Amino acid sequence: MRIATYIKDQQHHVGLVSEDGLTVQALDIDPALAKLGVLGLIEAYGDSSGLAELGRGSPTPLDAVKLLAPIPHPRRNIFCVGRNYHAHAKELSGSVFKGNSNDPAAWPIVFTKVPETVIAHGNDVMLPTGITEQVDYEAELAIVIGKGGKNISQADAMSHVWGYTIVNDVTARDVQMRHQQWDLGKSFDTFCPMGPSLVTADAFDAANTRVRCWVNDELRQDGQTQDLIFDLPTLIETCSRGITLYPGDIIATGTPAGVGMGFTPPRYLKSGDRVRIQIDGIGTLENVFR
Amino acid sequence: MRIATYIKDQQHHVGLVSEDGLTVQALDIDPALAKLGVLGLIEAYGDSSGLAELGRGSPTPLDAVKLLAPIPHPRRNIFCVGRNYHAHAKELSGSVFKGNSNDPAAWPIVFTKVPETVIAHGNDVMLPTGITEQVDYEAELAIVIGKGGKNISQADAMSHVWGYTIVNDVTARDVQMRHQQWDLGKSFDTFCPMGPSLVTADAFDAANTRVRCWVNDELRQDGQTQDLIFDLPTLIETCSRGITLYPGDIIATGTPAGVGMGFTPPRYLKSGDRVRIQIDGIGTLENVFR
Repeated sequence: MRIATYIKDQQHHVGLVSEDGLTVQALDIDPALAKLGVLGLIEAYGDSSGLAELGRGSPTPLDAVKLLAPIPHPRRNIFCVGRNYHAHAKELSGSVFKGNSNDPAAWPIVFTKVPETVIAHGNDVMLPTGITEQVDYEAELAIVIGKGGKNISQADAMSHVWGYTIVNDVTARDVQMRHQQWDLGKSFDTFCPMGPSLVTADAFDAANTRVRCWVNDELRQDGQTQDLIFDLPTLIETCSRGITLYPGDIIATGTPAGVGMGFTPPRYLKSGDRVRIQIDGIGTLENVFR
Repeated sequence: MRIATYIKDQQHHVGLVSEDGLTVQALDIDPALAKLGVLGLIEAYGDSSGLAELGRGSPTPLDAVKLLAPIPHPRRNIFCVGRNYHAHAKELSGSVFKGNSNDPAAWPIVFTKVPETVIAHGNDVMLPTGITEQVDYEAELAIVIGKGGKNISQADAMSHVWGYTIVNDVTARDVQMRHQQWDLGKSFDTFCPMGPSLVTADAFDAANTRVRCWVNDELRQDGQTQDLIFDLPTLIETCSRGITLYPGDIIATGTPAGVGMGFTPPRYLKSGDRVRIQIDGIGTLENVFR
């Protein structure tokens, strides 16, 4: 199932997107849950298998509703993984990852973005004028946790996944570098476009998909999740090691090669640029930078 | 005013602690707010000036209630500052801060701890057995934000502070180092003792206080906030630069010299160790490690 969070007639809804992606049917759930988006579904219903039983409204054209991020306000910071595609690790080996271990047995790099970075498909990303001159895109597949847990093994990890969405892990490179720890340079308001929808785990092969990103229609990133350095079970095991994961937690899995900083000279985003991310099987997330 | 969050007779309360620290009087607030602790007060009443007008119950001995952390569940990850006392920067220059800039004009290092790390005075910190062999204490003064805002200037910063509390920024050194970004090594369940109470900004001189930490009654840390590398207005300006701060946000301001990793050989915590942190004007936070 593909699920969208949206507003129609001033009401919050969570609904099922049709196969052709043109319409959405609101699920018949408590309005308080609908305000939480897919997080409300996860917290109230647990796994997604019961959703098909819920009543639903008549089909509405998707272009007649105001789309929100699938989870408009995560309950805590988003876990994000750095240096997780081989080619991307190489392109930034002299800058962001300078001094980082090149040991293939190294542990994943995990940092966070504040929940309030999240915006929807179609919302503008606001360039923090006077604070950064180096805003960059990072197209990423994001895991949404369904069943919480601690010390989750790789063997069990995939049973904890509720679904997947797309995020743009927008990054101010100068700020990322100057603070040494990355959270601030990743956490500016509007720096986490998410969506357009969320696909349930049963309907998506996360280990074999393609992550692409265009800036103003120029293809910049084109990665395959087979090229992940640390696969999804490893990331879930890592983030849950001694740390309880909760339903609705989000883990952004890292970005493929082709970010703006990887070019010589670097190609950072400027006002008016349009960034479009497509992940086969999920959809297309597009945002303009202002 | 000194404020405590606690449970008495199965009810959540937020109350004013007496001058002598022996009793507490519950504030007459909505039970749903009381469950949020001081966060509920901040969100419902704004600044602390109106609290004296609230009705309150009769004095109850503090040792007859179950103390909770002042903010038992922050709304997002706790902002934490690294390398912020001169002597501490020096003691770890060869390890945690190796490769970090020694430039005095460098920017603060900011990372986060997940909200669910928070435990109360008197709760046990659970050592993550099999995951880390290097658990360390970090005694810290923590700022609690009252009035939210973005791009807060140093001149205005202190007007955004609601109050102060103590945190122990418990850290697994081996995990902190191996992931390169620090969030995971700082975010194990129970790794943020907080309390025992929260002091309102009007009643505390944060720029001139003493932060001490004992392990099993041996004094290990003894710092003065005059020795901060980046003072509190600078930290608030830094964290709010392009990032909206919200009421109830917590900024842990860094730890003085004397952490376990700074000894040769290092002196990490083991089961049964008791860590006690005292900040003059706030109180004493004590937790046993198990």
